[in-house]
Amino acid sequence: MGLQPKNVLITGANRGLGLELVKQFLRLPSPPKTLLATCRSPENAKDLNDLASKHSNVKVLKLDVTQPTAFENFPKLVESFIEGEGLNLLINNAGINIRHGLEEADSESMMETYTTNVIGPLRMVQALLPYIKQAAKSSTDTSLNCNRAAIVNMSSILGSMAENQSGGLYPYRTSKAALNMLTKNMNVDLKSEGILCFCMHPGWVQTDMGGPNAAVVKETSIAGILDVMSKMNGETSDIFIDYNGQSVPW
Amino acid sequence: MGLQPKNVLITGANRGLGLELVKQFLRLPSPPKTLLATCRSPENAKDLNDLASKHSNVKVLKLDVTQPTAFENFPKLVESFIEGEGLNLLINNAGINIRHGLEEADSESMMETYTTNVIGPLRMVQALLPYIKQAAKSSTDTSLNCNRAAIVNMSSILGSMAENQSGGLYPYRTSKAALNMLTKNMNVDLKSEGILCFCMHPGWVQTDMGGPNAAVVKETSIAGILDVMSKMNGETSDIFIDYNGQSVPW
Repeated sequence: MGLQPKNVLITGANRGLGLELVKQFLRLPSPPKTLLATCRSPENAKDLNDLASKHSNVKVLKLDVTQPTAFENFPKLVESFIEGEGLNLLINNAGINIRHGLEEADSESMMETYTTNVIGPLRMVQALLPYIKQAAKSSTDTSLNCNRAAIVNMSSILGSMAENQSGGLYPYRTSKAALNMLTKNMNVDLKSEGILCFCMHPGWVQTDMGGPNAAVVKETSIAGILDVMSKMNGETSDIFIDYNGQSVPW
Repeated sequence: MGLQPKNVLITGANRGLGLELVKQFLRLPSPPKTLLATCRSPENAKDLNDLASKHSNVKVLKLDVTQPTAFENFPKLVESFIEGEGLNLLINNAGINIRHGLEEADSESMMETYTTNVIGPLRMVQALLPYIKQAAKSSTDTSLNCNRAAIVNMSSILGSMAENQSGGLYPYRTSKAALNMLTKNMNVDLKSEGILCFCMHPGWVQTDMGGPNAAVVKETSIAGILDVMSKMNGETSDIFIDYNGQSVPW
């Protein structure tokens, strides 16, 4: 029946893949009723603010997942927009990549990357789980899918041990491997609540993070990701999927 | 030709698997010339100190891998014991497990576990890499093995995404998945230097961490681990091995 979650939240929505996610969600045949788009500095998010000014369902929210107090008022704010309906789809897209090899990686770059890429998504889920559960419960659908209730974590093939042939990128690779475990854990723990959890590899995409020589344009990556979201269900244990719909080994 | 690394360092050697590693290394047909055994509080490490008083090749060193200044003087100290010969085998065994589920896991428990279980081994390798490289270079052996130059990280099947059927233990599971990536990265990056890197699952062992109902006694676990260490070489891409010698999926 196609991808049509009612209420959606996307982190890191000011640029790159996050911004493209917002754009393509707005172009769905049935766009979200509420599309909450978070970023660290809404005051600098010109493209996202432009979208919000043209689409009343887009709400731009300030959120820095690394701040200790980030989630104090955030759940109430989310609740004020979704008005008792629950949150159907949370996409943890925000992430950083500090390009440190074996010699450069230090406690600071390891910690900062882990805090943003792993603890951020964890705290986000903890903060919004009541609303995601609410969405799962209030649905007439009893299967697991992205329209009912789902958590999607933006990972990377760089987090795959099996595919790692080139080493390096210590803070990023270790954080994405840990994010994959976070995802698997949530997949196991939240299945019985009717919540689907999986993680995605967006491809090597031409963004600020991926650089200009990357193999895939963001439009193609996100179109593929939305297609995967429309098809994912609770019937497979392959929950690390690339933008082409292929399973990525852990 | 059996396991006979000349100079060995084991972290977290005051109890459990670390202490048993020290004991069984001492019982090898050719025990290490120098066996550096680190722990956070040597003043409380009675069993380890007893061993050191009976075996002059055992040196007990104070090291808390979570301290920012832990590695300032440590490499010089290690050098003073191995006297220009290099370090043949580093076993990153120290680790913690804060048993937090999805609701309990917080920034503090996630950070503390990551710092000890992942950043600790990383900094340890960075601090001692010159000596491990020295061991690799000064060897007449050109293959990869634990007698020449190796880094072994004590992981856990709880860090396996593929084997995760029960969820929970968020700080520990995510840290061990990240440690596995750290290991894979080092395996790739250090192969050309003649250094072998792999990680091990010790089984569910009766220790302070594993509890009294665990399936395996530490003597069996460590005997198996030493057997694996005697056999591992650079010819396989399966580098996550359990104490029975079986490959563990990522």
